[in-house]
Amino acid sequence: MAVGGRRWIGLALVLSCAAAQPAWADAAAAADPLPSWREGRSKAAILRFVEQAAGTATQPAAIPPAERIAVFDHDGTLWSEQPLYGPLLYCIDRLRRLAPQHPHWRQQEPYASALRGDRAALIRQGPAALKTLLLAASSGLSSEAYAADVQRWIATARHPLSGRLQRQMVFQPMLELLRHLRAHGFRTYVVTGGDGAFLRPWSEAVYGIPLEQVIGSRLALAYQDQGAGPQLQRLPQLEALVDGPGKPVAIEQIIGRRPVAAFGNSDGDRQMLDWTTTGPGLRFGLLVHHTDGRREWAYDRQAAIGRLDQALDQAQRQGWTVVDMARDWRVVHPADNSAQHP
Amino acid sequence: MAVGGRRWIGLALVLSCAAAQPAWADAAAAADPLPSWREGRSKAAILRFVEQAAGTATQPAAIPPAERIAVFDHDGTLWSEQPLYGPLLYCIDRLRRLAPQHPHWRQQEPYASALRGDRAALIRQGPAALKTLLLAASSGLSSEAYAADVQRWIATARHPLSGRLQRQMVFQPMLELLRHLRAHGFRTYVVTGGDGAFLRPWSEAVYGIPLEQVIGSRLALAYQDQGAGPQLQRLPQLEALVDGPGKPVAIEQIIGRRPVAAFGNSDGDRQMLDWTTTGPGLRFGLLVHHTDGRREWAYDRQAAIGRLDQALDQAQRQGWTVVDMARDWRVVHPADNSAQHP
Repeated sequence: MAVGGRRWIGLALVLSCAAAQPAWADAAAAADPLPSWREGRSKAAILRFVEQAAGTATQPAAIPPAERIAVFDHDGTLWSEQPLYGPLLYCIDRLRRLAPQHPHWRQQEPYASALRGDRAALIRQGPAALKTLLLAASSGLSSEAYAADVQRWIATARHPLSGRLQRQMVFQPMLELLRHLRAHGFRTYVVTGGDGAFLRPWSEAVYGIPLEQVIGSRLALAYQDQGAGPQLQRLPQLEALVDGPGKPVAIEQIIGRRPVAAFGNSDGDRQMLDWTTTGPGLRFGLLVHHTDGRREWAYDRQAAIGRLDQALDQAQRQGWTVVDMARDWRVVHPADNSAQHP
Repeated sequence: MAVGGRRWIGLALVLSCAAAQPAWADAAAAADPLPSWREGRSKAAILRFVEQAAGTATQPAAIPPAERIAVFDHDGTLWSEQPLYGPLLYCIDRLRRLAPQHPHWRQQEPYASALRGDRAALIRQGPAALKTLLLAASSGLSSEAYAADVQRWIATARHPLSGRLQRQMVFQPMLELLRHLRAHGFRTYVVTGGDGAFLRPWSEAVYGIPLEQVIGSRLALAYQDQGAGPQLQRLPQLEALVDGPGKPVAIEQIIGRRPVAAFGNSDGDRQMLDWTTTGPGLRFGLLVHHTDGRREWAYDRQAAIGRLDQALDQAQRQGWTVVDMARDWRVVHPADNSAQHP
């Protein structure tokens, strides 16, 4: 319909922007930006921090926009990590596809357990075995070919226990928290011990986090030019393990600013939360405590995957917010499929 | 002045935004976004690329906003690098301040030449000697203390030959180019062989490039907590050398997107330009050729600092724009002090 006149262009733009999200989402967000969070101390602490950081009509912002950097762990903080980290579920799948070219894998650990899908045996073999799988499964191809392979996997892969799409194992309350922070001028980063190149191809679609704001463990890359144009080849060599003390180190090397808010769920996030919350001025630290054996998994001090022990004690001493998943979260995974989850 | 009525709020906002830069700058930019560039092939190629990339009223954008990544080398591309790279001038100054605690430096190379200010002797000793100076001068303190030290230095340090403030050795035409790209939705990054932590404290003030968009060579960091809160300590160990093939590698590891435009001036930028310009779709590569021995320095194939040899040949083959500094730039350094420069 032609309406003519210049001022209609402006109106059309306003309407088309508003249409970018459904009207009910707008209304709900105005009423409660964190609808999947039950009222309580955790939700109140988050809302209070964001309000103080970004300011209100009557109160100036405590944190200037350029410094509103919030860092999130991935496995166990933004999506479920049981019975095994998502990036390793991808590696197992890829090793199975590569296995015909490597017949000796059937007799050699940790490949043999991976090919049998024996996750418990893999976990018993420890971090060195998991690293071997990562290097074998995700090197030997170009960065671009790897990203395309991950894209294909995440489009259809299902979680081994719940049967849901793997990308729907994300936590609905954390999606709302990410949005709420960004709506108040925060830049949200993922800082993960998993391979950053595994998360980047889908971080924007699932979390609204552009790939350049994903910091993860890194395989070394080689620049190669054999006549058909340059390639960046993924080498079977870990350049950086972004876990534990490696998290604040990677944040400083890559972002170059000390974050003001940090979100994690395990001892591997302890130093990231410590580095973030001991800086000057207003700060916020939060741990997701997996207490919900009915809708997700319940684990902490004794867990082989996602151990939360020292960090839980430190949270008490340093006043970090500890989310009790069973009590604080009205919904765990995105609503549509929540009922089907064991 | 109270004018009342809702529509005046909109008008006030428009006026206050416009006031963010002086009216003359607006008018000049509208007339010519690159006033320090003389008319000619280089300027025309830049303007044409930006117009095609971002689109016009009659032509759709060739490159979506998320992919408008432009990468710039630093030394020799954004500021003068003769007679020695700026980050090393800082190192020499700092070594002199540290020298009283290291009496043996007076008898030991490359420290002895550095303390005497014998730049020619340092250059003769080659890259390994320059690396030794970098590690000695810029390790052994925390990231935060280092940033503060660099800030103090850049505030007052003067170039050893021109006598200008070191931070005014930047190229006025390149400042205009950075602004022009950003005005068309590009994100501008620096990708430098120098220590990224040296540039970050002042990149925003001088180039309008926020510190998280500075990618440079990196010293290893150690996370330390000796009771007084965590610190990131700079170690005398090079974690990454972001030069030559290290440039595309660092771009992929840190940004995770293949740039669409790359700007350099030496053989160390060759792979970055190659990686950028051989991607699919619209691409742009540019080399600054230092041809102006009167206003700056004239050097290329034989230079010990900033050699431009293989890359110059490759520019011919691959259609990169080669800026002839003497002919293409009306002004080299920012206008105020231009006349004082030898």
